[in-house]
Amino acid sequence: MHCASRGRFVTFEGVEGAGKSTQVRIFAETAEAAGLKVVLTREPGGCESAERIRELLLHPPAGGLSPLSEALLHYAARREHLGKTIEPALAEGYWVVCDRFADSTMAYQGYGLELGAGVVSALHDLVVGDFAADITVILDMPIETGLARAKARSPEGDRYERLDFDFHRRVRDGFLEIARAHPARCIVIDADRTQEAVADAVRMEIARRLGVTL
Amino acid sequence: MHCASRGRFVTFEGVEGAGKSTQVRIFAETAEAAGLKVVLTREPGGCESAERIRELLLHPPAGGLSPLSEALLHYAARREHLGKTIEPALAEGYWVVCDRFADSTMAYQGYGLELGAGVVSALHDLVVGDFAADITVILDMPIETGLARAKARSPEGDRYERLDFDFHRRVRDGFLEIARAHPARCIVIDADRTQEAVADAVRMEIARRLGVTL
Repeated sequence: MHCASRGRFVTFEGVEGAGKSTQVRIFAETAEAAGLKVVLTREPGGCESAERIRELLLHPPAGGLSPLSEALLHYAARREHLGKTIEPALAEGYWVVCDRFADSTMAYQGYGLELGAGVVSALHDLVVGDFAADITVILDMPIETGLARAKARSPEGDRYERLDFDFHRRVRDGFLEIARAHPARCIVIDADRTQEAVADAVRMEIARRLGVTL
Repeated sequence: MHCASRGRFVTFEGVEGAGKSTQVRIFAETAEAAGLKVVLTREPGGCESAERIRELLLHPPAGGLSPLSEALLHYAARREHLGKTIEPALAEGYWVVCDRFADSTMAYQGYGLELGAGVVSALHDLVVGDFAADITVILDMPIETGLARAKARSPEGDRYERLDFDFHRRVRDGFLEIARAHPARCIVIDADRTQEAVADAVRMEIARRLGVTL
């Protein structure tokens, strides 16, 4: 049996329009080019059962879902993703690079939809326990800029983009609150710059914090 | 605006083959014949979003779902069912008669799949809080009898019926443990009798405990 040293778990978070999906992809390519084995994944989703839950979260029936139901579905998807994709890949030495993880549930449901940080924390402890990302990149920018970018990309907006400005302000404040509470894990990156400048900042900060050459 | 007195919430639970769905239907008809307004519903399900979650629970992708993910999905469905069907109906004075509720998650996931009573209890407190059925009918019979009945009804079995004998023994013991812990709410009915004898026992016990004529 081949024994690999455990990989690293890197998560990307951020407000709408911050360029998260682009930066996740660029970082995964950078890490692979540096010779690391990389799994690029996303939440909600990342394995078949979790993608089925994603479908329900993104396209709920008329009447929608309550914020608590959304949080429960996100954590059900996360439990599946952890057991079926993330944990096995880390055990095999892969770097798992994930587009959104638990901080999004805290920021969107806990803060944005005002379910409350306590409820999301309790759910997190029950489902995820002590497991955490080795590093979390929070792509930050002013709400006005992010929403304008998201709108240019998709004029109709998704279910979050259609919510009001105060919602998005609470989400951004939520991410910044999480970063303050977990300074060893979280890096806040100013995403209101060119794609290349943001990618360089992400690469350098991750290399420095995790002690690798990228 | 019409003001109705609050309805009652009656749940039916039991092992495979105990005749639960038949008894739920008979009781709902009995209550309607007695002049009560009745909503007959079921879990997982009972509203559109919860029925979507039911679909995933009953037909998961290859590889299945972890017991904890199942419990989270059941509670997401339950939160939807409570908010969209059960609570509004009770407020309008309906008697809500439900085929399975929270005790099934405790018995099947908590005890049967050995997720643990503590995890299910913590989830329950977070999602349901103090809300509880006014009365819970637990249809009990020996596992051998129940499984033989279920097999006669559907020779291929569903996902639970295909599980081993020890699983079903743990589920039955779980229901009996719940009944011991909540004697004011739970009635254990011997279901190893004719359909008519069971229906009579259910009707008389509910009438007596809730102080109504049925």
